[in-house]
Amino acid sequence: MFPKNCWYVACTPDEIAEKPLGRTICGEQIAFFRDGDGKVAAVKDFCPHRGAPLSLGYTEGGGLVCGYHGLKVGRDGKTLSMPKQRVGGFPCMKSYPVEERYGFIWVWTGDADKASSDAIPHLEWAVSDDWAYGGGLYHIQCDYKLMIDNLMDLTHETYVHSTSIGQKEIDEAPVKTEKVGNEVTTSRFMDSVIAPPFWQGNLRTKGLPDDQPVDRWQICRFTPPSHVLIDVGVALAGNGGREAPADKRVNSVVVDFITPETETSHWYFWGMARNFKADDPALTDAIREGQGGIFAEDLEMLELQQKNLLANPELRLLKLDIDAGGVHARRIIDKLLKEENPEAAESSLA
Amino acid sequence: MFPKNCWYVACTPDEIAEKPLGRTICGEQIAFFRDGDGKVAAVKDFCPHRGAPLSLGYTEGGGLVCGYHGLKVGRDGKTLSMPKQRVGGFPCMKSYPVEERYGFIWVWTGDADKASSDAIPHLEWAVSDDWAYGGGLYHIQCDYKLMIDNLMDLTHETYVHSTSIGQKEIDEAPVKTEKVGNEVTTSRFMDSVIAPPFWQGNLRTKGLPDDQPVDRWQICRFTPPSHVLIDVGVALAGNGGREAPADKRVNSVVVDFITPETETSHWYFWGMARNFKADDPALTDAIREGQGGIFAEDLEMLELQQKNLLANPELRLLKLDIDAGGVHARRIIDKLLKEENPEAAESSLA
Amino acid sequence: MFPKNCWYVACTPDEIAEKPLGRTICGEQIAFFRDGDGKVAAVKDFCPHRGAPLSLGYTEGGGLVCGYHGLKVGRDGKTLSMPKQRVGGFPCMKSYPVEERYGFIWVWTGDADKASSDAIPHLEWAVSDDWAYGGGLYHIQCDYKLMIDNLMDLTHETYVHSTSIGQKEIDEAPVKTEKVGNEVTTSRFMDSVIAPPFWQGNLRTKGLPDDQPVDRWQICRFTPPSHVLIDVGVALAGNGGREAPADKRVNSVVVDFITPETETSHWYFWGMARNFKADDPALTDAIREGQGGIFAEDLEMLELQQKNLLANPELRLLKLDIDAGGVHARRIIDKLLKEENPEAAESSLA
Repeated sequence: MFPKNCWYVACTPDEIAEKPLGRTICGEQIAFFRDGDGKVAAVKDFCPHRGAPLSLGYTEGGGLVCGYHGLKVGRDGKTLSMPKQRVGGFPCMKSYPVEERYGFIWVWTGDADKASSDAIPHLEWAVSDDWAYGGGLYHIQCDYKLMIDNLMDLTHETYVHSTSIGQKEIDEAPVKTEKVGNEVTTSRFMDSVIAPPFWQGNLRTKGLPDDQPVDRWQICRFTPPSHVLIDVGVALAGNGGREAPADKRVNSVVVDFITPETETSHWYFWGMARNFKADDPALTDAIREGQGGIFAEDLEMLELQQKNLLANPELRLLKLDIDAGGVHARRIIDKLLKEENPEAAESSLA
Repeated sequence: MFPKNCWYVACTPDEIAEKPLGRTICGEQIAFFRDGDGKVAAVKDFCPHRGAPLSLGYTEGGGLVCGYHGLKVGRDGKTLSMPKQRVGGFPCMKSYPVEERYGFIWVWTGDADKASSDAIPHLEWAVSDDWAYGGGLYHIQCDYKLMIDNLMDLTHETYVHSTSIGQKEIDEAPVKTEKVGNEVTTSRFMDSVIAPPFWQGNLRTKGLPDDQPVDRWQICRFTPPSHVLIDVGVALAGNGGREAPADKRVNSVVVDFITPETETSHWYFWGMARNFKADDPALTDAIREGQGGIFAEDLEMLELQQKNLLANPELRLLKLDIDAGGVHARRIIDKLLKEENPEAAESSLA
Repeated sequence: MFPKNCWYVACTPDEIAEKPLGRTICGEQIAFFRDGDGKVAAVKDFCPHRGAPLSLGYTEGGGLVCGYHGLKVGRDGKTLSMPKQRVGGFPCMKSYPVEERYGFIWVWTGDADKASSDAIPHLEWAVSDDWAYGGGLYHIQCDYKLMIDNLMDLTHETYVHSTSIGQKEIDEAPVKTEKVGNEVTTSRFMDSVIAPPFWQGNLRTKGLPDDQPVDRWQICRFTPPSHVLIDVGVALAGNGGREAPADKRVNSVVVDFITPETETSHWYFWGMARNFKADDPALTDAIREGQGGIFAEDLEMLELQQKNLLANPELRLLKLDIDAGGVHARRIIDKLLKEENPEAAESSLA
């Protein structure tokens, strides 16, 4: 069960550029396509004629044509036409509110009447010319909440990403967790440390020395339903850390949109936005490739953690200070679930 | 649940030429082999000794020797011998009526007392020297009735096979469905159209022009339990269509023997019989290769349709005029099922 | 359900040489590693913090460090440390008695209080300089008891291993089964036969003629929980068979440690110990390679037998004289199971 009265990232525009896309989100099989105006549309991926997946078909005249027998569905789920058939009485299939914004397609799988595009969070880095963004998508076989836990506690970088962004000082620095309304923030500040390889590279890119002590920060911010944006960076030590002048620091936003597929799988849209050398696409590619490699290191751990939890449902996990971010995020998810489904049980790890 | 008091195509002779064959048909695991007279035999694929699959063994002295400990079973399922053992009291395993005819091995998985080889349908194209046949086998992960639907409504050719046998005129031509006893026929006639690529090739093969209007026909005939033979062809326009003189037309029989494996998988024996250039094996090979490619285009659609139906059991499908052939075929299957199993429920799509 | 108050072979030292090993044994997920003294340790493969598999981590300072957030577990399952955490109150995870002996790691998955290393069977061939050993490991998808059946009735060599160690005389020779306490022995003696290819090779290796009649023997010995050691050999005919002088015979011990993973899968540690040319590692390698190929011939049969048994739970198997070894072994396993679990049902094939 998932909070459904909210916007999830469903896909990126390139995924529907050539043909429709079939993707399961929050347990709903959905076909995404562009209508006649080029506007993205989302309908249940099930042809009302014989149940074929509409996403195997093609778009034509603003509708999505089933690739089996030619029934054409409109963006509202109504059948527009079918060769030699009167379609007036055909059942209307479910359609989904969908928005294209900030380089992502957002979908609302819950009560359509409650959908408002205003509820899509503002992403300054996606609209400002001072910022550049690059990212990718992983399909991961674990509960999306395990990924939230992962991102709200960066202690794991020391262990999982020891050769790139991890460093011993992370798990030695205290973590501070704050909850304000439905937002949860965990933050860590490591003063006067040597930057790990990933940040050394970024310092060099910006023309800063990579062998001098830096003040490093990580501020992870969870907002419902499952977005985690992380303000990360390093500044030459003693210049005010995160508040240092731009020419003394290098920083970026780690972007994580985590979209449930099933109870034990999810779509992970990861990326990085930076406000330096924003007009350098080769740098964007290089960072994307590096980040993709680092984030892939989490997959085996998360998928085996999921198997372990399924195999040992009776075992209670610990909730340490470092876990407080994930624990609070799960409580918010549980609260939203309860609001939508008063009967819903609590998340087992909350 | 499947009608079992009937003949299904189980395999082709080449599949048992070198060694026994294990294949599940209508949920029954069966070992096929040739006995001492070269006659095909079929027994439960389960050694009464320790349950090993007999089909891993070999034939010897007319029996099928288990490849684990040497128990030898006869065509009647009785143990013939086992080294150093008295086998008189060994349990008799199930055996199946089986016939080799028309280049196929036919099996009867129901009540053996009711099996009569007379019930195997006559296939003129398989015995006449005027005809040549070539075909293949696909193992498909969907209910065999979805394949019957597919073949009894060729509207899908326009969409699934658009580059070979599909053309827009198919779904614009009305379909006529007839039910006579346990047979269902759907037919379409498209007059004065340009032949699609597959038929253009056949026209050229027969020395006929490929760029002139033709009258095209498709007559799909379902007979229980799940055979669909399709009379297809084109004739130079205005010469009487299907009744045109042989030198003005080119035609063939599309052969479809659809054999259930489980409720959601089947063996699909497809092929084409033609009555032109019957003595040209290279042409047979070329047609087989072309047909194999075309028929493979249906697999993804059928398998994903099956998944969609399993995931949405509550959704009722439409039954349009174009679906009448499949719907009638399912009703006949349901009737046969009810005759064999008075308690059986109706097929969900009938 | 498995007898658990006993020692099973869990792995070989090379498997934990580089990093920890996660392996499921008797349904228990276990992480194996070496502690600070180099002594092998075994703990539940589940980090008490968030359920990550400990086996993905690394060893440090005598403990096993979780590769996710750095919790360190000791050989007794207690948390030794975690960065910035007080771990005194952390739950103690299950640990397992474990011993390294004879070139194997042995694990006790039952009641730790009852574990005594004295219960590990003495293996003379593993400690004597007169013997050499080589072996391997197969992961097989079938009930481990089907493997015991396989090894306690070598009749199958005639069929499954016809080109190497099988020969017609095996299933023509009577088998003698003896049960003494919890040990079961099946034996076969074939006098004055021509050696099969595997033994011809061994005769040549020892400088003996390979084309003269030999007396061949096979003595299979089952001891709980699931060890089968097989005394095999050939002697030039008429020299007393197994009692012939060393220069008239060649013989070895086939070693089979069969460790349950789940109810339908197991770890099969196979090997061969020989007391000729014990100081020839190239010969050890050659024999290992040959045996590995021969023993791989059983895999398909066993895995398909398992599928057949699962698909036909209602069918009762035969228990012939040749099966008596396996039947007795299963009865002993059932007796041990009943002692550990008075409610346990009988093994279906016993």
